[in-house]
Amino acid sequence: MNNFTFCTPTRYLFGRDTEKETGRLTAGEMKSHNVLLVYGGQSAIRSGLLDRVRLSLTDAGVTFCELGGVKPNPTDDRVYEGIALAREKKIDGLVAVGGGSVIDTAKAIAAGTLYDGDFWDFYAGKTPVEKALPVGVVLTIPAAGSEGSGNSVITRIDGLHKISLRTDMVLRPKFAVMNPALTCTLPPYQTASGIADMMAHIMERYFSPTDNVEVTDRLSEGLLKAIIGEAAKVMATPDDYESRANIMWAGTLAHNGICGCGRAEDWTSHFMEHEISAVYNVTHGAGLAVVFPAWLTFMADVAPSKPAQFARRVFGVENRDDKGAALEGVSALKAFFGSIGLPVSFAELGIASPDIDLLVSKLHENKGDLVGGYRKLSPVETKAIYMLML
Amino acid sequence: MNNFTFCTPTRYLFGRDTEKETGRLTAGEMKSHNVLLVYGGQSAIRSGLLDRVRLSLTDAGVTFCELGGVKPNPTDDRVYEGIALAREKKIDGLVAVGGGSVIDTAKAIAAGTLYDGDFWDFYAGKTPVEKALPVGVVLTIPAAGSEGSGNSVITRIDGLHKISLRTDMVLRPKFAVMNPALTCTLPPYQTASGIADMMAHIMERYFSPTDNVEVTDRLSEGLLKAIIGEAAKVMATPDDYESRANIMWAGTLAHNGICGCGRAEDWTSHFMEHEISAVYNVTHGAGLAVVFPAWLTFMADVAPSKPAQFARRVFGVENRDDKGAALEGVSALKAFFGSIGLPVSFAELGIASPDIDLLVSKLHENKGDLVGGYRKLSPVETKAIYMLML
Repeated sequence: MNNFTFCTPTRYLFGRDTEKETGRLTAGEMKSHNVLLVYGGQSAIRSGLLDRVRLSLTDAGVTFCELGGVKPNPTDDRVYEGIALAREKKIDGLVAVGGGSVIDTAKAIAAGTLYDGDFWDFYAGKTPVEKALPVGVVLTIPAAGSEGSGNSVITRIDGLHKISLRTDMVLRPKFAVMNPALTCTLPPYQTASGIADMMAHIMERYFSPTDNVEVTDRLSEGLLKAIIGEAAKVMATPDDYESRANIMWAGTLAHNGICGCGRAEDWTSHFMEHEISAVYNVTHGAGLAVVFPAWLTFMADVAPSKPAQFARRVFGVENRDDKGAALEGVSALKAFFGSIGLPVSFAELGIASPDIDLLVSKLHENKGDLVGGYRKLSPVETKAIYMLML
Repeated sequence: MNNFTFCTPTRYLFGRDTEKETGRLTAGEMKSHNVLLVYGGQSAIRSGLLDRVRLSLTDAGVTFCELGGVKPNPTDDRVYEGIALAREKKIDGLVAVGGGSVIDTAKAIAAGTLYDGDFWDFYAGKTPVEKALPVGVVLTIPAAGSEGSGNSVITRIDGLHKISLRTDMVLRPKFAVMNPALTCTLPPYQTASGIADMMAHIMERYFSPTDNVEVTDRLSEGLLKAIIGEAAKVMATPDDYESRANIMWAGTLAHNGICGCGRAEDWTSHFMEHEISAVYNVTHGAGLAVVFPAWLTFMADVAPSKPAQFARRVFGVENRDDKGAALEGVSALKAFFGSIGLPVSFAELGIASPDIDLLVSKLHENKGDLVGGYRKLSPVETKAIYMLML
């Protein structure tokens, strides 16, 4: 086990009707009284959620301006717009109502508003984020885990660079209001994509070169088993509050860092997917359902021990040969993704003739000559993995 | 799943040599510059740990006074002594070097110093803790989980009332330094008792009347499996850093609240054990190894569904009858405790003729007519459970 530090100060308020507490948490937990309310498309408006949040803020004496219409795979243009608005209105915090795209946009604005230079410096790795306005969250889509993480992913329109920024503390939300009932109307494909995303967040940490991390391994395996079991229920009965609740909470734990304690992580599959969704604008989770089995198939050949443990402990595979077990695990994972309606190939993702050389070159341009933690991969190897997605 | 709120702001610094960071964390994370250093017996002195902590504080410009010699099952007299010292020296924080007894004493002093009345009011349930001095921890005994919890257990000498105080936030340590190497010299019996204690912290939450908590269930089962596996290693090779590390981290997660999210908890076994250790001064974890199997045996008869799930998922029991599976799980748990040298009866605990009527009357005097969460128990029933420990 490696040395590590871990701190998750986000206040989670989880359960029915909790969005009514947004104002109280904004004024209390966040100590903000004039905020930028960031949100996405029509669903939060139509459902009345946005009005309930506005009322809660007003009732708590919090004034606000708004930045709506944030899109999936959020782009830098909305961040620049938000920073300008935040400065003009002299806000002292942000409240994000939505999923990962909205939260990540709010985080970028939170950091950029207090920075003299171009906010993209943070994402380009030129400078670390040293301060940011506080961010609170009303979560509507469980997937990205951004409500409990210090991370943010933004796409630069110029060049289609989709870049993940990771911080320890400064961008962690002060609070996250999580009402599973808000997720009962999510369409099946979006629900399934979220499930793949949270599973990938666990697996990127699970496939680690660090040995002797049994506690973190067992936690990760337990979370994966819970997600797989609850996924079947939620696909069969989309308005089942209980399975929605389990999946929503799993999405937070998948990405708040607890599955990474004491070990090096991997993140190759996320990086490979980011290139796919930056070029082809696919749903991130669906892209991950294509990438992860291909990555695992490659690893079953070159480093099968952890994939075999994954297969045995998560899917109950009994094959005692590591490579054989690992490949059975890949089949089980693909079958699971298929059962919830997710693609497991470029073709199923709707990309008939992917430009794999472009994906490989952008991947290594963004992430360096070698990519990965469980095993470092050269361009020849990442190309082989992209080929396995055909 | 029930509504819940969850926030764990403690900064964990985990790994080799981390105690050298104590001063930096005290001045930085805790913002304290004149602290009371609380510690226990001779081992921290002999090992040189206390000197390293003193040096680290001094190097960071933190001045300190000291309260040493805190005993297991800590008593109110040392708390009063500490409060008087804290006020005289005008401290602005506490650093606890030790295990649960030392940390819990530091927490009681932290709350009592800022309170005009008798600190025992908090433990007697007369008034909630509204403010406390910040507490930092250098953990030497993984068991109580107090380094990551808002709880504290103190025994009142007058009447031998051992009372657990639970707070959400105010008593959570600001930081916890956790170097597994410090635990490599713990004697086998103390190591095993700590393992039973952390397992009980998980099981008290696991045996819940709340349904549909699959994520929290799977996390709990994963932690229990990890502890059971690592326990065998650490008993065979006491100075194995890796298994010590896994057990130390498990002890924190067992009690920081993550295993309780979304459900009512039980805590009967802890309450029953607190009466045993208050009267007979046994090691808390060893007492729990006696109490828990007896409690589970009773539940196998009256409410076997969750004990059966526990038996199947944690111990791999295959019996499809719930009561049969639950009883097989009890046998497996007893066999496990026996394998690491723990008692599973009053006799093995060294109590030849326990005064069960006294234990029952003190239990219900402290905890009310009915005790428990998974199932509420009357004095007739708690007596039956104590009898099962004979």
